[in-house]
Amino acid sequence: MLNKVAIFGVGLIGGSFALALKKAQAVRQVVGVGRSAAAMETARELGIVDSVAANAADAVTGADLVLLAAPVAQTGAILAAIAPHLQPGTVVTDAGSTKSDVVAAARAALGSKVRQFVPGHPIAGREKNGPEAAIDHLYVGKKVVLTPLPENAPQDVARVAAAWEQCGAVIHQLTPEQHDQVFAAVSHLPHLLAYALVDDIAGKPHADLLFQYAASGFRDFTRIAASSPEMWRDISLANQTALLGELDAYMAQLQRMRAHLAAGDGVALESVYANAQRARHAWGQALEAAESAKK
Amino acid sequence: MLNKVAIFGVGLIGGSFALALKKAQAVRQVVGVGRSAAAMETARELGIVDSVAANAADAVTGADLVLLAAPVAQTGAILAAIAPHLQPGTVVTDAGSTKSDVVAAARAALGSKVRQFVPGHPIAGREKNGPEAAIDHLYVGKKVVLTPLPENAPQDVARVAAAWEQCGAVIHQLTPEQHDQVFAAVSHLPHLLAYALVDDIAGKPHADLLFQYAASGFRDFTRIAASSPEMWRDISLANQTALLGELDAYMAQLQRMRAHLAAGDGVALESVYANAQRARHAWGQALEAAESAKK
Repeated sequence: MLNKVAIFGVGLIGGSFALALKKAQAVRQVVGVGRSAAAMETARELGIVDSVAANAADAVTGADLVLLAAPVAQTGAILAAIAPHLQPGTVVTDAGSTKSDVVAAARAALGSKVRQFVPGHPIAGREKNGPEAAIDHLYVGKKVVLTPLPENAPQDVARVAAAWEQCGAVIHQLTPEQHDQVFAAVSHLPHLLAYALVDDIAGKPHADLLFQYAASGFRDFTRIAASSPEMWRDISLANQTALLGELDAYMAQLQRMRAHLAAGDGVALESVYANAQRARHAWGQALEAAESAKK
Repeated sequence: MLNKVAIFGVGLIGGSFALALKKAQAVRQVVGVGRSAAAMETARELGIVDSVAANAADAVTGADLVLLAAPVAQTGAILAAIAPHLQPGTVVTDAGSTKSDVVAAARAALGSKVRQFVPGHPIAGREKNGPEAAIDHLYVGKKVVLTPLPENAPQDVARVAAAWEQCGAVIHQLTPEQHDQVFAAVSHLPHLLAYALVDDIAGKPHADLLFQYAASGFRDFTRIAASSPEMWRDISLANQTALLGELDAYMAQLQRMRAHLAAGDGVALESVYANAQRARHAWGQALEAAESAKK
């Protein structure tokens, strides 16, 4: 049982963490803290947090666990505000979509106290945001990737893992660099590509005609282009190096496919399509099997 | 009321057309014809067709309307088989995803009888194929794009339009060239891009690790990469010129975004993302409004 959990940013991610811990009766007291007084008051009214802390010092004092779930651009400032008040018994984790940059910010802000910081990334989301969007089952069956530091004590990593497991999540571990490489490929690049396509089409003189005939395939392909531009700007820049690498590999792939298409080489084109279809099918099957095993 | 409708290829598209016409009591007799005797027998057993014709001549003789719904690669051969038996009272249409190439094939195969050919493209599909996948409501509220030829008699275009309207579809008209330009942008390019991404990831040494962390955004983005490689090879080659144009515009867009990312230019990157998000949101809203208006 956690005595006190402090959450910076009580929106979808932080709020759902609080609700899940409460549902599991895994915490005595949840304290929220954030820049928007209105959002904090909503979180309190909704029973997501028991109280709202006036500042970082009040929030972290006496806390077993601190979760940073504010927009990633605030991470450095929050860590700096926490640092002087961080007591030995407190473990800090985060929910950011990139990890190498967070680790660098944590080292800069926390100094030797970085040993108390266990970086994390819950792979879960909804199309809605804010405390009203928080639900107690957001993390059930979802992956949470922890990227522990060499300095972390095993029992501190275990405390963070146990809290997420109480929320129903499955814990994975990667290094921060592996994490950023993986998510550049399977998440950050697809977002950039979807934004690129919609912006490309929207900029054409006959955009209205084009959108009129866009159907279900287009809808699925571009769904992620409805995501928050600010958030994805921050993620793109935070994971700049890995994302550039993935983007370059993808552009080289498009150049090869363009050559096949220009040459009318149906065999080569079909080979790419068929290989992708097989891999997509196998992945989809594995995903379905994993999801039905959870039920 | 149509007296006799002949359908070449009684799979999802042709079979659903037959079932919808029957449900609307808009046809007396549906005759099927196709390369697979087993599929034709299934179609007959399922009540999709009333009888199976042994050859193209038997199928089209006395038909008011002929629908070509076999794989597009067979279109030229089917038109050539039909040509000598095509009587003045018969109108032929098709369901191919590209139109300029179909028009060229029809001119070559039908000669002056091309006036009896009204090209069409129903914008509907399911993930399943074959006669078992056919349903009587596939076209309800869906668009069917007709691309009439200068030679078509208005009453022949009207006959094709009326048949699709009996299936619940909404008729649109474009020129064959407009059609191919539009679908290169909103359908053919997204398919190529999704195939490209999955093949790119599947070819990496750590592909298994990557797929393990792919989540719902990746699932939606790559759903169209589960489509038939043969069909999309044919579509890509059939619409080669327009697709190359769209691909080049997209690669230029990626080059611009790569430059923003490499320069760490968050303002420029966010501007693309935000413009895309606004356009995607407006399109999604319009689509939802159109769909709820249908109900």
